[in-house]
Amino acid sequence: MTPIEMVERRTTMNGAEVLVKTAAACGIEVCFANAGTTEMPIVMAFDAVPGIRPILCLFEGVCTGAADGYGRMREYPAMCLLHLGPGLANGIANLHNGRRARTPIVNVIGDHATWHREADAPLAMNIEGLAETVSGWLCTSRDAENISQDMADAVEASLQGQIASLIVPHDHQWVQSSDDPVAPPRVSCVPIDFDRIETTVGLLKSARKTVILMDGKALRKRGLHAAARIKAATGCDLMSVTFPAYMDRGAGLPFLPRVPYFPEQAIAALSTYDGVIMAGAREPVAFFGYENGASYLLDPASRKIRIAGEGQDAALALEVLADALHAPLAGNDLRAMVSIYDRPPVPEGKLTAEKACTVLAALQPDHAIIVEEGLTSAFAYYPQAATVGPHSFITITGGAIGQGIPCATGAAVACPDRAVINLEADGSAMYTVQGLWTQAREDLNVTTLICSNRSYFILQVEMMRAGCTAPGPKSLSLSDLGNPAIDWVSVSQGMGVPAVSVTMAEDLAEELQRAIEEPGPHLIEMVL
Amino acid sequence: MTPIEMVERRTTMNGAEVLVKTAAACGIEVCFANAGTTEMPIVMAFDAVPGIRPILCLFEGVCTGAADGYGRMREYPAMCLLHLGPGLANGIANLHNGRRARTPIVNVIGDHATWHREADAPLAMNIEGLAETVSGWLCTSRDAENISQDMADAVEASLQGQIASLIVPHDHQWVQSSDDPVAPPRVSCVPIDFDRIETTVGLLKSARKTVILMDGKALRKRGLHAAARIKAATGCDLMSVTFPAYMDRGAGLPFLPRVPYFPEQAIAALSTYDGVIMAGAREPVAFFGYENGASYLLDPASRKIRIAGEGQDAALALEVLADALHAPLAGNDLRAMVSIYDRPPVPEGKLTAEKACTVLAALQPDHAIIVEEGLTSAFAYYPQAATVGPHSFITITGGAIGQGIPCATGAAVACPDRAVINLEADGSAMYTVQGLWTQAREDLNVTTLICSNRSYFILQVEMMRAGCTAPGPKSLSLSDLGNPAIDWVSVSQGMGVPAVSVTMAEDLAEELQRAIEEPGPHLIEMVL
Repeated sequence: MTPIEMVERRTTMNGAEVLVKTAAACGIEVCFANAGTTEMPIVMAFDAVPGIRPILCLFEGVCTGAADGYGRMREYPAMCLLHLGPGLANGIANLHNGRRARTPIVNVIGDHATWHREADAPLAMNIEGLAETVSGWLCTSRDAENISQDMADAVEASLQGQIASLIVPHDHQWVQSSDDPVAPPRVSCVPIDFDRIETTVGLLKSARKTVILMDGKALRKRGLHAAARIKAATGCDLMSVTFPAYMDRGAGLPFLPRVPYFPEQAIAALSTYDGVIMAGAREPVAFFGYENGASYLLDPASRKIRIAGEGQDAALALEVLADALHAPLAGNDLRAMVSIYDRPPVPEGKLTAEKACTVLAALQPDHAIIVEEGLTSAFAYYPQAATVGPHSFITITGGAIGQGIPCATGAAVACPDRAVINLEADGSAMYTVQGLWTQAREDLNVTTLICSNRSYFILQVEMMRAGCTAPGPKSLSLSDLGNPAIDWVSVSQGMGVPAVSVTMAEDLAEELQRAIEEPGPHLIEMVL
Repeated sequence: MTPIEMVERRTTMNGAEVLVKTAAACGIEVCFANAGTTEMPIVMAFDAVPGIRPILCLFEGVCTGAADGYGRMREYPAMCLLHLGPGLANGIANLHNGRRARTPIVNVIGDHATWHREADAPLAMNIEGLAETVSGWLCTSRDAENISQDMADAVEASLQGQIASLIVPHDHQWVQSSDDPVAPPRVSCVPIDFDRIETTVGLLKSARKTVILMDGKALRKRGLHAAARIKAATGCDLMSVTFPAYMDRGAGLPFLPRVPYFPEQAIAALSTYDGVIMAGAREPVAFFGYENGASYLLDPASRKIRIAGEGQDAALALEVLADALHAPLAGNDLRAMVSIYDRPPVPEGKLTAEKACTVLAALQPDHAIIVEEGLTSAFAYYPQAATVGPHSFITITGGAIGQGIPCATGAAVACPDRAVINLEADGSAMYTVQGLWTQAREDLNVTTLICSNRSYFILQVEMMRAGCTAPGPKSLSLSDLGNPAIDWVSVSQGMGVPAVSVTMAEDLAEELQRAIEEPGPHLIEMVL
């Protein structure tokens, strides 16, 4: 029997079919999946019920990272289908990144049949305990009759900018279920606080020097335009958080410096402001706490106000603020706030990390999606790309490495007509290298640029910061990826992605141009 | 400054150095590590304090799986060094396998500095919540003065056959600590219940047909010898659990059928027994609960007795039982219970899963360590290897795939003089493929035999079991690894492990022989 014949023989659908039908009705189009026996009814339901495209990933960290990339581009969730506790556990690191990005993601996790749980079978785990660590919404299905509502609730919860995890026991998938029609999810937003907007106008007028710290929707076009208006009207500065989930960038948009990574630099950069307006951003904190270091980065004497927090539309808050300031909607004052189109020339000679970044800024096509997990190697890219054509920029929000390849994969699924370029550290790339295979299978337009410096270079920097100028052989061995050197061309081709290795800037330019023009995935190892 | 100079400038050690010194004093020799900033003082302590060999793994699932393989071979823990919540999360699936195997493993997980926790920095997670899901012992360091005792407690706890997880905030690593001498860990064992042995003698004498279900120490040489004596004295049957953590096997040892994987077959195999003795084994349960299926596999009418449970020495229990039965210690009756040395001939012609298994049984060297994560492809191996030279046999206890490559890596570190052969499914291999790189760096004697059937074949079997004889394109796509086919030679060479692909049994034989003879790691793709 085929799955469709199996449905036709029954008068009702089973729980799995109701789940898939509801997910499709709620607007879910894609499911990044690595299923097992306890999810088999859902797997078969993808054939029996139309509407959802399942995409196989060969490791769950790829599924969840792809859902993160998809959700950041679409502002709407993809579904992940994960196998029991171990499958969820493998996906947690990238769910953590998604949680920090406030990406809508819907996880469906199979569990043992309810009556089989007490047997504590080999794969049994505390799935709820695992899911709680990353989920803003968590539900274990109580029976098959509620599956439609559970699924719709999950989608609605995810749209608050959080991970929604629905655990579905195997028997709730296979038993018959009535197909309750469920209302489509509502996107609700915490309303803007207008009193706070008034206070912010006062702050902007009275402070010596004010900065608007931006994150969330503030970093999308609407928010950036409103911020540019405010800057034109008041002379305030604009700044992005260190690791934005998503940013619209390029010519025609204002340039936002990012809060520096190391706390002493961040404190220095922020110390000039006696007024700080947070739009979609939390109060900035140090990535790590160092000996004799600080947690909080703002001048304690500064006046701080948050005009839009989690679950609020920071772009709308900035628009309301701009209007309250009677900020210009057009004209030379506003035009002076945004970048004028300009590209760096393609550099020549032996590749360095800086030159690699310049080549990318010089050649990236308009409307590219840039996923940046290059860490130390990508340092020079951000400022150079400020003036190139309009593009999307995505970073590693939660610091859990292994985000780039999956996130680029999901972004390419979300936006098949756009070029995705993943500027990727070699150490990070190894974490979820299996994602290359999904790029090959789905023929995705992703170009992966591997920054092959053959080290966890950030750790060597950290050792120096800790006062160790001459690391011993054991500590060096834990940050050295050079023995043996990973042959990225071989690894990539082995997973079906055409690849080349370059050592010269002009060769990188030629290969990057080719990779962008040819459909399908490519990988370029940049030996740095 | 070098790490040693840093120590010499101080009058005391820091917390990290005390931790490493204590671990070494407790007999820890190896640390499988992927560290970050919050573990940097421990990384530097490996150089400042002698005794521990750190081994870099390029993904935490490799660290934890390697520690599992090491612990199963040594019956003593290795240490894992993991970076915050995301690093621990990446290691959980293989810790789950280790938990089910009752392997001693000591995790050390860094956390943010205590004063930095409230800042909820990007990498902050509920580490305790994650660790609880797999740890039998869990402690978060309260201050640097207790680190020595905490570490010694962790080692002692792990020796109960469980995962011990010690979370150490960054500041407890860098602050000065007095170096308390700590007593070496004691291995304590729950004593044997002698009354129960008497009852078991009665059961063996009165039951029509009895089986001893064996796991844990019962499957190591001492336990197997005692079980053979009991069989010689009583005519009972011996059986292994489906997925043993470790088994001594080969000529001179009794052959133990394993409880079949699918519940209907297991129930049939066990239905002939009206007496069941569990030695180190739990009551067997179905791996999955199926529609109209059962959880428990023993005949409810059978008489069951457990002579050694968790934390008890099942080999000792069997020895005491054998003595109580006045079972022979030598002689023909006992010799008839064990396998006579015999090897299958090397097959010829186009490779199949069965022929691949036969080649391995025909050629594996004496005292090899066989890691079996071949799933459906490895089905024919187990019975054929019963009569070959003595060897160790390790399986995927918790069902979390991605166990084979890491486990083989750890076993090779534990036993550098023995050949390790990993019979590995292709889908499982992709989960933790990064482990090949560690095999190359450490020049480990591991031969990986990839069963390249280009599918999650078990899932296709499961679809048939669910009544779906003609899966649709979407469900097939989620179990098909063939589009594109993974080029295992390319992937393996890219990570520094020499590799070949074979399609004929005689070529496999030649390449396996060569791989065993040449030092260092090898990979053979067996196209099935």
